[in-house]
Amino acid sequence: MIMNSRPKEYCGIFGVYGHEDAAKLAYFGLYALQHRGQESAGIVSSDGREVTQHLGMGLVSEVFDEPILDSLKGHIAIGHVRYSTTGSSLLKNAQPFLVQHGGLNLAIGHNGNLVNTRSLRARLEDEGHIFQSTMDSEIIIQLMAKYIREGFESALIKALGEVKGAYSLVIMTQNKLVGARDPYGFRPLCLGSLNDSFVIASETCALDLIEAQYIRDVEPGEIIIIDDNGINSLKPFPKVRTAFCIFEYIYFARPDSNIFGNNVYMIRKGQGRQLAREYSVSADLIMPFPDSGNCAALGFAEESKILFEMGLIRNHYVGRTFIQPSQSMREFGVRVKLNPVKHLLQGKRILFIEDSIIRGTTTRSRIKSIREAGAKEVHLLVSCPPHRFPCFYGIDFSTKGELIAAQNSVEEIRDYIGLDSLGYLSLEGLLKATRMKKEGFCLACFDGNYPTEITETVSKYSLERSD
Amino acid sequence: MIMNSRPKEYCGIFGVYGHEDAAKLAYFGLYALQHRGQESAGIVSSDGREVTQHLGMGLVSEVFDEPILDSLKGHIAIGHVRYSTTGSSLLKNAQPFLVQHGGLNLAIGHNGNLVNTRSLRARLEDEGHIFQSTMDSEIIIQLMAKYIREGFESALIKALGEVKGAYSLVIMTQNKLVGARDPYGFRPLCLGSLNDSFVIASETCALDLIEAQYIRDVEPGEIIIIDDNGINSLKPFPKVRTAFCIFEYIYFARPDSNIFGNNVYMIRKGQGRQLAREYSVSADLIMPFPDSGNCAALGFAEESKILFEMGLIRNHYVGRTFIQPSQSMREFGVRVKLNPVKHLLQGKRILFIEDSIIRGTTTRSRIKSIREAGAKEVHLLVSCPPHRFPCFYGIDFSTKGELIAAQNSVEEIRDYIGLDSLGYLSLEGLLKATRMKKEGFCLACFDGNYPTEITETVSKYSLERSD
Amino acid sequence: MIMNSRPKEYCGIFGVYGHEDAAKLAYFGLYALQHRGQESAGIVSSDGREVTQHLGMGLVSEVFDEPILDSLKGHIAIGHVRYSTTGSSLLKNAQPFLVQHGGLNLAIGHNGNLVNTRSLRARLEDEGHIFQSTMDSEIIIQLMAKYIREGFESALIKALGEVKGAYSLVIMTQNKLVGARDPYGFRPLCLGSLNDSFVIASETCALDLIEAQYIRDVEPGEIIIIDDNGINSLKPFPKVRTAFCIFEYIYFARPDSNIFGNNVYMIRKGQGRQLAREYSVSADLIMPFPDSGNCAALGFAEESKILFEMGLIRNHYVGRTFIQPSQSMREFGVRVKLNPVKHLLQGKRILFIEDSIIRGTTTRSRIKSIREAGAKEVHLLVSCPPHRFPCFYGIDFSTKGELIAAQNSVEEIRDYIGLDSLGYLSLEGLLKATRMKKEGFCLACFDGNYPTEITETVSKYSLERSD
Amino acid sequence: MIMNSRPKEYCGIFGVYGHEDAAKLAYFGLYALQHRGQESAGIVSSDGREVTQHLGMGLVSEVFDEPILDSLKGHIAIGHVRYSTTGSSLLKNAQPFLVQHGGLNLAIGHNGNLVNTRSLRARLEDEGHIFQSTMDSEIIIQLMAKYIREGFESALIKALGEVKGAYSLVIMTQNKLVGARDPYGFRPLCLGSLNDSFVIASETCALDLIEAQYIRDVEPGEIIIIDDNGINSLKPFPKVRTAFCIFEYIYFARPDSNIFGNNVYMIRKGQGRQLAREYSVSADLIMPFPDSGNCAALGFAEESKILFEMGLIRNHYVGRTFIQPSQSMREFGVRVKLNPVKHLLQGKRILFIEDSIIRGTTTRSRIKSIREAGAKEVHLLVSCPPHRFPCFYGIDFSTKGELIAAQNSVEEIRDYIGLDSLGYLSLEGLLKATRMKKEGFCLACFDGNYPTEITETVSKYSLERSD
Repeated sequence: MIMNSRPKEYCGIFGVYGHEDAAKLAYFGLYALQHRGQESAGIVSSDGREVTQHLGMGLVSEVFDEPILDSLKGHIAIGHVRYSTTGSSLLKNAQPFLVQHGGLNLAIGHNGNLVNTRSLRARLEDEGHIFQSTMDSEIIIQLMAKYIREGFESALIKALGEVKGAYSLVIMTQNKLVGARDPYGFRPLCLGSLNDSFVIASETCALDLIEAQYIRDVEPGEIIIIDDNGINSLKPFPKVRTAFCIFEYIYFARPDSNIFGNNVYMIRKGQGRQLAREYSVSADLIMPFPDSGNCAALGFAEESKILFEMGLIRNHYVGRTFIQPSQSMREFGVRVKLNPVKHLLQGKRILFIEDSIIRGTTTRSRIKSIREAGAKEVHLLVSCPPHRFPCFYGIDFSTKGELIAAQNSVEEIRDYIGLDSLGYLSLEGLLKATRMKKEGFCLACFDGNYPTEITETVSKYSLERSD
Repeated sequence: MIMNSRPKEYCGIFGVYGHEDAAKLAYFGLYALQHRGQESAGIVSSDGREVTQHLGMGLVSEVFDEPILDSLKGHIAIGHVRYSTTGSSLLKNAQPFLVQHGGLNLAIGHNGNLVNTRSLRARLEDEGHIFQSTMDSEIIIQLMAKYIREGFESALIKALGEVKGAYSLVIMTQNKLVGARDPYGFRPLCLGSLNDSFVIASETCALDLIEAQYIRDVEPGEIIIIDDNGINSLKPFPKVRTAFCIFEYIYFARPDSNIFGNNVYMIRKGQGRQLAREYSVSADLIMPFPDSGNCAALGFAEESKILFEMGLIRNHYVGRTFIQPSQSMREFGVRVKLNPVKHLLQGKRILFIEDSIIRGTTTRSRIKSIREAGAKEVHLLVSCPPHRFPCFYGIDFSTKGELIAAQNSVEEIRDYIGLDSLGYLSLEGLLKATRMKKEGFCLACFDGNYPTEITETVSKYSLERSD
Repeated sequence: MIMNSRPKEYCGIFGVYGHEDAAKLAYFGLYALQHRGQESAGIVSSDGREVTQHLGMGLVSEVFDEPILDSLKGHIAIGHVRYSTTGSSLLKNAQPFLVQHGGLNLAIGHNGNLVNTRSLRARLEDEGHIFQSTMDSEIIIQLMAKYIREGFESALIKALGEVKGAYSLVIMTQNKLVGARDPYGFRPLCLGSLNDSFVIASETCALDLIEAQYIRDVEPGEIIIIDDNGINSLKPFPKVRTAFCIFEYIYFARPDSNIFGNNVYMIRKGQGRQLAREYSVSADLIMPFPDSGNCAALGFAEESKILFEMGLIRNHYVGRTFIQPSQSMREFGVRVKLNPVKHLLQGKRILFIEDSIIRGTTTRSRIKSIREAGAKEVHLLVSCPPHRFPCFYGIDFSTKGELIAAQNSVEEIRDYIGLDSLGYLSLEGLLKATRMKKEGFCLACFDGNYPTEITETVSKYSLERSD
Repeated sequence: MIMNSRPKEYCGIFGVYGHEDAAKLAYFGLYALQHRGQESAGIVSSDGREVTQHLGMGLVSEVFDEPILDSLKGHIAIGHVRYSTTGSSLLKNAQPFLVQHGGLNLAIGHNGNLVNTRSLRARLEDEGHIFQSTMDSEIIIQLMAKYIREGFESALIKALGEVKGAYSLVIMTQNKLVGARDPYGFRPLCLGSLNDSFVIASETCALDLIEAQYIRDVEPGEIIIIDDNGINSLKPFPKVRTAFCIFEYIYFARPDSNIFGNNVYMIRKGQGRQLAREYSVSADLIMPFPDSGNCAALGFAEESKILFEMGLIRNHYVGRTFIQPSQSMREFGVRVKLNPVKHLLQGKRILFIEDSIIRGTTTRSRIKSIREAGAKEVHLLVSCPPHRFPCFYGIDFSTKGELIAAQNSVEEIRDYIGLDSLGYLSLEGLLKATRMKKEGFCLACFDGNYPTEITETVSKYSLERSD
């Protein structure tokens, strides 16, 4: 997938219980999960009595420094990284979200998107509740405050019982750590251990970094509560089919992570191998768009025996405040990030492998720059089917109008991008590469079958726009 | 080569004459040359009368923003990116170095290292000259000021005639752009054109980014003066043998650049192919350390037919202000940057390809983390000979004491790093891969034969330490 | 009063309705009220639909700049400046406090201190309300949210009916401006007009600055609601005696303001004149501590015919981040702010006039420095009675333990400070200078008679400490 | 004098030798001299071997903090505060100016303005010297570098012998402190002691602050060198008449300082008394513009027996980044800084005393605001003669065109400002108040008689404009 038009995942979450350097572990855990959100980062920690929070806009490495981490004392911590695509890029929407309520400190970090926030919020406001943010995650906290007189566990179950949609959560109080995953299990969440402490993270790459041992995934519909009494698993909700987000395999998760029971790198290589079985292309060499197409391209090369090259050189120093070229310098932008090795491409038939195409604009610019570098033919194979439907569970493909495949045939897309040929992996081929059953996945972005009812306009900014 | 112990190149330089957006072109040019120096960046521009300068610590994208670039008016500009390894990381040592002298504005950007600065500076101070910095580049400006009454061209030739060592230069006045390269041609420098304007740059990748056409290299010993009268080439110095820095091919230059007459990507693939001819290793898969070993590993895989994998996943969000793990969390640092795909490595015999080893410490940490991920055997081949001698011409291998190969045998290094086997490309093999004559290169870091006399202690900080 | 041990007033408030530059007027209004709070500043504005907020730590001139003010669009605005003395110096406690609730935007700025917040907060949390801050002002908003279904006006009256203590308030919604003052009228609040717009401010000096005309004071117990229908006055609460804070006259309010029906400068001159009638001191010259004692010293000089001099020279550039002298340089601090003109004092008998003494420590340092400058005798007269009791209505004399007069006789204070003589204005003399009735004032800091019941520990940080 | 059109003094200087906390003393000394320059501040210190420098834009309290002061180690320090009125507000023009030259560190802080810099600089550049700044102070350093082979003392005498104009200097090397004053003694400079250490400062108020004892003034034409051998006084230049800047008495120096042999407060009171002898005004009350007219107004009141009031209330929180009112809010600016107590002025005949009028614009705005506050008559007396000529010795009255009295009669000025009457103190009266001889002063701003030849255009920015 191309950088600029990337679908935006809301976040990555991390929690630790029982380690003297809890906040530092959270820091490293978030570092490993940075690919899941680069807009804001936050950590809340507790030493059993006092709770400390630090949030900031920017990368984990920008938001935290040594003195800040030192101030986040205690043996319990949760952390969160977040991305959002529009005007909501405000610090007050950064997480973990923390409130003091009565004697209780309650913090939450949320990955996923709820689909019934609008009606829940209206009902609570009617009852006098004042909301501090526009995040759907605050609904869970407000519901817990409403039921808290019945006890923590009961309030938690009642609150989660009322929300609908996708959530993988870490929740924290002065002396508890909670991990929870919605009954469909849209987003990944795993449990690990580090000596005597427990760790919860969006992906296993966060466990690897801190040398924690993977224990098992938090199961769909499961609530895990960790405190002085040890670890306690609750499964209070009726069992439903799973709806694992297949796009985590295709694009989001890091290749070194294992999610939904498989290693991501291997799945992606399998997609590439499968693609080679579905398409036969006469090409002199095969290249990925770094780094998104790497695994699939390796799989394709292995299967097809076409020469694999890395002829797009990446500039590792591209800052985020990139200055736009003047009118007279258009098209520099593409080459700033990736410059083709002209020598390698000149007069050659090149096959590119890409993990997905969302809007197609960046792919188009890149292909143009490849042709200008002297390639004779340019072919592109995509290691998943065309994206035709928006996601309501936490991946921002923006509106349907922005999905090029929602409006255009493959031939039209090929023509727009300027390719000699274009092919997509079939849905069957994709599933074959995962070696899992179709029914276990959410495939809504490809086939429009949403696992939950969608009654509200559940754009993540719907709450705000209604103000 | 491993990130932390990278040899440090002083800088990249760029110049443009005759373009309405000269400073913006310089900005993009420096962007493309950022790999040559990440510590400070600067641009000086002129509209024919007024000269403007902006310098800053940090990356090009951090130092400049739109309003700053807008303030750098004019059709002439030179730019500079710099790295230094010690306490000299001061803004006053950033370049381009600019002085007003009489009616003249004189700015210089320098890549390389002079070897007779100490005696020159002492002589000039004795004559009443006050130095503003500890950069050897200032010597050239002070010498020019001394001779300027004889005219610009004469002062330039006299000044360059007195300095010894490595220099590729861009020099600018209100209405002139100069490119110059020392008689040995240690560092690369090329000339290009963009419509009616001329461009000078350390590497051709900077021309590619701004879509300039490559004309030819600035020749060793050549001075090119560009002004209203057009372009004028001077060769005032006696001709000597060339001494191209072979380490530019091995490590420094970007693979998409052509320098010293060849494409860097192709040279590096050739090194890998040559390595495969010199060593036969029984391995299940071959992997580069990204991105330093990529080209050589591809060449090795092509020649050896061993399966090529990219099993070290890079974290693209590693900030520069990385927080050190606590005592109890040692060794996290390595995995923060590169995490192995355990699934891929477990029980396998892995062959790594690396472009060079300087101190060996980071390689050691990485190999350790590979073993912990479950690899059965770990082998390493290096695509150049062992580094045994310091460089006095602008590459900072630090002192000889820090070069692991200066003090240890290959077997000792293998043992220190913790490898099953270790091999280096032979010097003959390296030269074979370049298809150029041995006599044209500076190979001093491998064989200790320095092309120029070395009488002073020419560590780049010698000036400072003597204060 | 001496700078370092100043009693700390919580804040100044300002509101405007119906002016195209509402936020800019608020900015200037806060500028004029800056003496009432220097820790944080904030403005909330509305154009009838959209509500915008900006808060910051620091002075008005530091918190706002041109682009920020431009972004605060609309014809309605309220502003707030705040001081607090301890750890609560957090941005989240800055005001105006703004919430979105249902379709309603509700902002509040509060001057004064409530005395029943603890019990009210406990009750509301029990009902599921989540508090965002530790400010007592939030209680009013939470109460309004609770009753809002009954309509805005009703909710406002019910909320204010439940809180007890001192409050002068500005409240704002998308399309309303409210000014309100507690039934005792502890803190001042006035109403003015500027062309067709209405202005509400803590003191008339804010009206002067923006050239608004003073209409009248907001009366004790009055609620003024301004919207499209014009101005509407409500007096829903039972009438009680007034309890004007006499310390506003003595110290807080600016001399150019008129409050509680009189001009402050004139009142203070009157205190000085009265002091001259109560004490006869043989002195060569009389001096104020600038600027706190200016008015009273002028009145004293006028009455006593003793020569008035301004022999303490003020350093106008004293920053707030003042660096402490080393051990070997103690006592510099005092002279940094005020340096005596030695020439003037040498061998003289000096009479100082001061508006009040709280802890006495700074006065002591100053008197010491006067003696060292060569004065023969040093006398001090204070233009109010000794402060013996803490304030629960918004002035922070800290705890009773810090009030020097709560623990010591006048003779002991004279001795501690190091004076030749010390005298305080009598309570009767003070009242005489105001020409108002004793019963209309809160004199609790002098006589311990608190106008309201004090059942809770109402230190302003009590809420926080209980967390 | 009115704030906005203040003549701008270049700077204040301070030096200390032999104190363990030299940099901290310099910090406090500069604090006391802040009124002489608010644009930049700097300190250079030495421990006998290593020399450290810190410069910054802004107030002393903004430029320095605890860690910075701690880093300025050693027992010798010089400091400098500076003001400049135009585009030269650059950090590179901040002082003390420091160079490394050969083994020598040479730093200089300069108060005053040279009048032959242009020809000196041209000559030095011709000899190959490169200048780093546009400050005339650098000329002295460059001249010293030229002669340094003849020894430090000789180089210093030769350098000072070549420059013409006004200078009070502190100069420092690793192990020496120098104080020097030009032969005319335009600017003040004094010598003091603190235990075993020596202190040099622009004004005695800096000695007071650090509790140093005043020893004597550095004499006109004297060079004082302090090092391990003690204190050494040189008087190498031919004796000329003194030319003390009378404007230091009238406006610049702090009233608590003693300069040129007298106390400033007393001189200013004398000016006021003399004014009362020269003018008889029927007024109800007399007021100063704070704080500039305070002393003279007290003197006038004492002599005339008219009631003295302080009816303009100063806002102590006026920031330097003041936001301009909108078009519809003009004239707020004046009242932001000083608000009249209306109550006091209404229906009264007011006499204002001001120390000087330069351009008259701010005075005009103020008088307008006084009239709007209700005064019946407004009279103004100025405690010096009209300013008719520019200053070339370090006070920036800007060009002659900006001096209102250079172009207009007193009657025209009265009319422009909008006064009922206006009077200036006579030159004879001014001299009488000083009790010193006319010949000892520079009175050029009043009578146009410049003590030195003025051949160059010596506007302080002439050097820059010529670039």
